[in-house]
Amino acid sequence: MTQLSVHTDKHLLGTKGMTAGELTSILDRAAYWEQYPVKVSNGLQGRFVANMFFENSTRTRFSFEVAEKRLGAEVLNFAAAVSSVQKGESIYDTVRTIESMGVDAGVIRMKPNGLLAELAQKIKFPLINAGDGNNEHPTQALLDLYTMRKQFGEIKGLNVAIIGDIQHSRVARSNLWALQALGAKVSFCAPQGMQAAELAGHAPYVTIDEALKADVVMMLRVQLERHEGTLFGSAEEYRAAYGLTVERAARMAPHAIIMHPAPVNRGVEIDDELVECEKSKIFQQMSHGVPIRMAVIERALS
Amino acid sequence: MTQLSVHTDKHLLGTKGMTAGELTSILDRAAYWEQYPVKVSNGLQGRFVANMFFENSTRTRFSFEVAEKRLGAEVLNFAAAVSSVQKGESIYDTVRTIESMGVDAGVIRMKPNGLLAELAQKIKFPLINAGDGNNEHPTQALLDLYTMRKQFGEIKGLNVAIIGDIQHSRVARSNLWALQALGAKVSFCAPQGMQAAELAGHAPYVTIDEALKADVVMMLRVQLERHEGTLFGSAEEYRAAYGLTVERAARMAPHAIIMHPAPVNRGVEIDDELVECEKSKIFQQMSHGVPIRMAVIERALS
Amino acid sequence: MTQLSVHTDKHLLGTKGMTAGELTSILDRAAYWEQYPVKVSNGLQGRFVANMFFENSTRTRFSFEVAEKRLGAEVLNFAAAVSSVQKGESIYDTVRTIESMGVDAGVIRMKPNGLLAELAQKIKFPLINAGDGNNEHPTQALLDLYTMRKQFGEIKGLNVAIIGDIQHSRVARSNLWALQALGAKVSFCAPQGMQAAELAGHAPYVTIDEALKADVVMMLRVQLERHEGTLFGSAEEYRAAYGLTVERAARMAPHAIIMHPAPVNRGVEIDDELVECEKSKIFQQMSHGVPIRMAVIERALS
Repeated sequence: MTQLSVHTDKHLLGTKGMTAGELTSILDRAAYWEQYPVKVSNGLQGRFVANMFFENSTRTRFSFEVAEKRLGAEVLNFAAAVSSVQKGESIYDTVRTIESMGVDAGVIRMKPNGLLAELAQKIKFPLINAGDGNNEHPTQALLDLYTMRKQFGEIKGLNVAIIGDIQHSRVARSNLWALQALGAKVSFCAPQGMQAAELAGHAPYVTIDEALKADVVMMLRVQLERHEGTLFGSAEEYRAAYGLTVERAARMAPHAIIMHPAPVNRGVEIDDELVECEKSKIFQQMSHGVPIRMAVIERALS
Repeated sequence: MTQLSVHTDKHLLGTKGMTAGELTSILDRAAYWEQYPVKVSNGLQGRFVANMFFENSTRTRFSFEVAEKRLGAEVLNFAAAVSSVQKGESIYDTVRTIESMGVDAGVIRMKPNGLLAELAQKIKFPLINAGDGNNEHPTQALLDLYTMRKQFGEIKGLNVAIIGDIQHSRVARSNLWALQALGAKVSFCAPQGMQAAELAGHAPYVTIDEALKADVVMMLRVQLERHEGTLFGSAEEYRAAYGLTVERAARMAPHAIIMHPAPVNRGVEIDDELVECEKSKIFQQMSHGVPIRMAVIERALS
Repeated sequence: MTQLSVHTDKHLLGTKGMTAGELTSILDRAAYWEQYPVKVSNGLQGRFVANMFFENSTRTRFSFEVAEKRLGAEVLNFAAAVSSVQKGESIYDTVRTIESMGVDAGVIRMKPNGLLAELAQKIKFPLINAGDGNNEHPTQALLDLYTMRKQFGEIKGLNVAIIGDIQHSRVARSNLWALQALGAKVSFCAPQGMQAAELAGHAPYVTIDEALKADVVMMLRVQLERHEGTLFGSAEEYRAAYGLTVERAARMAPHAIIMHPAPVNRGVEIDDELVECEKSKIFQQMSHGVPIRMAVIERALS
């Protein structure tokens, strides 16, 4: 592996600030694991990894757990919703406790924004971000990059349009930083109320028709309950304005692909018929999550 | 093992349609595992099995998990109640996601009726039914058969009376098909509101006094909350009419046994004193669950 | 290991009645495991341990799980809150079921008082108490003793003050019996409503100022929701009267240490600044939990 910067050494908090070299070394290692001849290695035998999900997600936890077990590690799981009142201290005390038990690395997912960066200053064992607030979700972006590289050979020069609730999306942010570091051109597409003020200047907002011209059309999960009483208070209205319908997908370029971090809202941001259509890489993305997470965990513990 | 039919190859959805040969080969293999000299084999080393419990059951999940670990498999667990609104798509997407991660087989339990058969058409990895709606619970029937065969030497010719809420019971259905395939005579005993219209003609309904003459008296768990406002709205009334009381148990034949899929409602469908009496095989049934599930998982992955 | 008495053989229900020899043999074995050169032994390969948490506790379960896995055991987990109505029978039936599956030992935590002793009469596999009601929490006391012995060389002659809600504390009880068996002098400090009538005569109640003179100041977690409408209905009042404030900690002897079973209520029974101060052994206690539980599980299965 290439030398990692001090910034990303040990912890994996986000793709922001990662260099092309760092990103590429993870993608290359994931490619090695995807081709690995047997299912379980013993590289991490006797090492303990804790999956600490303060915000629940069966899919992401399973993907990490498969990765950890394929590396031969011992796995500990917990999922505990943390109320907003006790959140900060409770999360710190829990993580510090798990560190005290001799656990070697922690995969962590949580709702509060900003807490992870603070935690990473105080905790000595490596932390891997499995989603924090609407800040970052770096392993999702890495598996997305892996999927694009596998499809197109390289990421440099690709046009990637990310469509949906940019404001609340950690997937959008992690993809933005990582894609730009590797030379892709990112554009966003979102209604006014779902645009992210703090990302202004980093990527242009385009119309849905413009977005459909991209090489990669990445749809985001829309949580309509967050937008009640607004213009897009109903699934039908959202679909009509920003959904990837069968009609819109037909206008995409022949070589272009559809991506989505899942879980999908069928019939809202994406039509049911498209989820497993030929252009869609949605379940391939999930399958790439395992080798990417193997590479990331191995990197944290090496 | 004998050649399995196309119908049951790979998936294990139910006992309906399974041949005597198929059933017997599973029982024989379970007998091998019951006698296996060490606790953990390495037959499934490096294979991943996911226990996907969309309807919670600690006991059934534990039994499968012990079986999987005794076979040397890597085990992934989740329990997630799925609301009725999202059920169909959500279950499919979750299972499809887990399949994408390279998991080799899935044990699945869920409430919606009919969904499992549909799922089995679309999912490529083997699915093992751990209880679906009130349709089937094949591993429960197999461990029941195993218990009967161990007790009586063979199943052919046995009289088995199943008493309780037949209408809502997947255990009754799976036992009916499997017992008949092996030549046992099945009778049901249930109040009007708990009889299953769609099973009419498959087994006669008999009185409780008649049922007590069977070689095997199998009591079902009654969920009285499903029958509020009916004749048997109270535990006392139900016990008086259809419960296996100490007095009724005394009238059973000396060689006859009591069975129950558990968990039991002590003092409702069965008296407290009977749960661990000499005639009762209730905890032996549970102990047979492990070798049966070893045989079933091994079959799915061979 | 020294010969264990009939009383504590197999099960570990509490420290009450354990001899100095028994306690010391566990502490000595934990010291061995703390120094063990590799993280995972294969001493319990092929043995199954079930963590049965009828009362939830992520930290305690994780500590046991790390211990079990470091011993090479196969681990099964469940956490299920049991309603008060069904509690007795339901817990017995569940534990009996798990025993039937061939599990070799059970770690158990539950709310109801008195039930564990009853269970231990009926269950054949070894039960390890991970907290029962306000009765005992023996592995917590053992890890506390371990921490004290490591700090001071020996426990005999130490002055230990336990401050807080003695009445509801299983930690206070298990420490009382174990510390006295090893020759320490225990005192309690608690407001009237938090004193334990049934412990009268076993340890004197002292003022907070007197308690601060001890070699070990052990703070207990206060659950103020249990004391609403009483003198100490507010966190501020409790802190003022019985909390370990920075000011009070400054009056402790130079060699004295602060302990707490965790999780802590920062700013209630202990000031935020003290949790990780030099005198505090709180996270060391947690780290000692693993070797103590390894010693205890190994003892149950040997």
